[in-house]
Amino acid sequence: MGTICVPDELSGFSGQMEGVLAALLPSQRGPEEKLYEAMSYAVLGGGKYLRPYIVETSASMFGVPAAQRRRVGAAVEMIHAYSLVHDDLPALDDDDLRRGKPSCHKAFDEATAILAGDALHSLAFETLAEPDTHPDTGVRADLAATLAAAIGPRGMVGGQMIDLESEHVAVGADVATRLARLKTGALFSFSATAGAILGQAHREAREALQTFGSELGLAFQIVDDLLDVEGDEAALGKKVHKDMTAGKATFISILGIEGARREVRRIADSALANLEMFGERGRALRAIAEYVLKRDR
Amino acid sequence: MGTICVPDELSGFSGQMEGVLAALLPSQRGPEEKLYEAMSYAVLGGGKYLRPYIVETSASMFGVPAAQRRRVGAAVEMIHAYSLVHDDLPALDDDDLRRGKPSCHKAFDEATAILAGDALHSLAFETLAEPDTHPDTGVRADLAATLAAAIGPRGMVGGQMIDLESEHVAVGADVATRLARLKTGALFSFSATAGAILGQAHREAREALQTFGSELGLAFQIVDDLLDVEGDEAALGKKVHKDMTAGKATFISILGIEGARREVRRIADSALANLEMFGERGRALRAIAEYVLKRDR
Repeated sequence: MGTICVPDELSGFSGQMEGVLAALLPSQRGPEEKLYEAMSYAVLGGGKYLRPYIVETSASMFGVPAAQRRRVGAAVEMIHAYSLVHDDLPALDDDDLRRGKPSCHKAFDEATAILAGDALHSLAFETLAEPDTHPDTGVRADLAATLAAAIGPRGMVGGQMIDLESEHVAVGADVATRLARLKTGALFSFSATAGAILGQAHREAREALQTFGSELGLAFQIVDDLLDVEGDEAALGKKVHKDMTAGKATFISILGIEGARREVRRIADSALANLEMFGERGRALRAIAEYVLKRDR
Repeated sequence: MGTICVPDELSGFSGQMEGVLAALLPSQRGPEEKLYEAMSYAVLGGGKYLRPYIVETSASMFGVPAAQRRRVGAAVEMIHAYSLVHDDLPALDDDDLRRGKPSCHKAFDEATAILAGDALHSLAFETLAEPDTHPDTGVRADLAATLAAAIGPRGMVGGQMIDLESEHVAVGADVATRLARLKTGALFSFSATAGAILGQAHREAREALQTFGSELGLAFQIVDDLLDVEGDEAALGKKVHKDMTAGKATFISILGIEGARREVRRIADSALANLEMFGERGRALRAIAEYVLKRDR
């Protein structure tokens, strides 16, 4: 059994996801076409498609058909793109660069970026709830309810609020961990759980994937903090050293570089422990966890 | 049979809706509590609750239990509040006053207002898709898919984009009508349709309510334009004459005051024609249409 090279897998997969996303995005001409252009700009071209790849890998364990898992992957990527577009706005992180291109509000304007984020947010739920996603209405309602909880005030957006509030304030590892679990972990957790929901897996499998995803997201966020200190701006396609400049409490400012590296390894091991029940079937998800630890972008 | 006085009905109903909304909104203390405060500020206190009242009235025709129809009403009001919060931002309509109070970004700040809107948007879908909304998963999936389509790029947000694009540009009645159908009509249409979805009504009833809601929303928007010219700032709780100042094409600038009044009456009659199939059961929805024509706030 050969090793799984995640960057290679991701590169092939991202081409397929772009096709799925392009087909779901609105594209008619008309007085609102600038909105459609901004949505496409924000969601296509340049993303790693890591979250849809987690959906893909998790759903494949349960034999879910490609068309179903890719619709859910597309919905997750729309949510991720919307969160980046709003996060980059001048009133929030004020980032001019995203994925090596001007961020959405620089390429268009602030009003269009706000609306494009809103439109991607709604379109993700439309995609999940439509019959093509799964023949069983219970699966579709579950996907919509679980995604909404993951990204709402008690999930991703709650984490973004903590992020804003923690600027120029000394916070401890507990608040930094809560921030990362909500802001990043919740959508990773949904991505891993979505496979179990689509595959109508038993409760233990679903809970194991939920925890795996949450831990993986936390590890991903700490690596993000490390890359902000040590990474290469060209490879990352976004500004580095911006957390320190913004006075943000990161895992690095709390734990130091070596401490943060140890913490990532510890959390990744804790994530991997949740995959034991899947045996050999969990191999591709294990490879994602190892990739997250070693990524340089 | 006495007449139905909608303002009196709305005033009693809004107290009940505030209780339902308050129970659904997050309220825990913690580092993200400012987000929760901004969400409550945006959604509670001061709204007419007209859209939830349409859900209430439509669902009552089909014997839908109060707890179910009010959860859907709450979801609709969350969406309406989110759209107002984002619309009032400096990059969009730049409104400092809403419902007689400082708008959300003035009472808090822009970043918090953007996130509060996003959080209300997600919470609406969470509310619809959870089991408490209806025991049948097909109803919940249908509600989520139908709402998402109504408020996404091909619905409400598409209308907001046309609104922005039509500033300082001469547009005709066709574009103004499309703008109003998307920006206002789509959520009104969902509100009326939601009763039929919750009540698992036959397709003809659903389609009639969908058209009724869409026409009602269009009439509502033209009355809004009339109030912007003729209304009282104190009664409206928001600035007047702002469309003209912003160089927006409204029904008034296209049709004139008398022409707009005739158009409202024509559209309201067309809306009412869709209620004929419901006979006496449609009485309360008919009263809403008459109220929309006569409202002064």
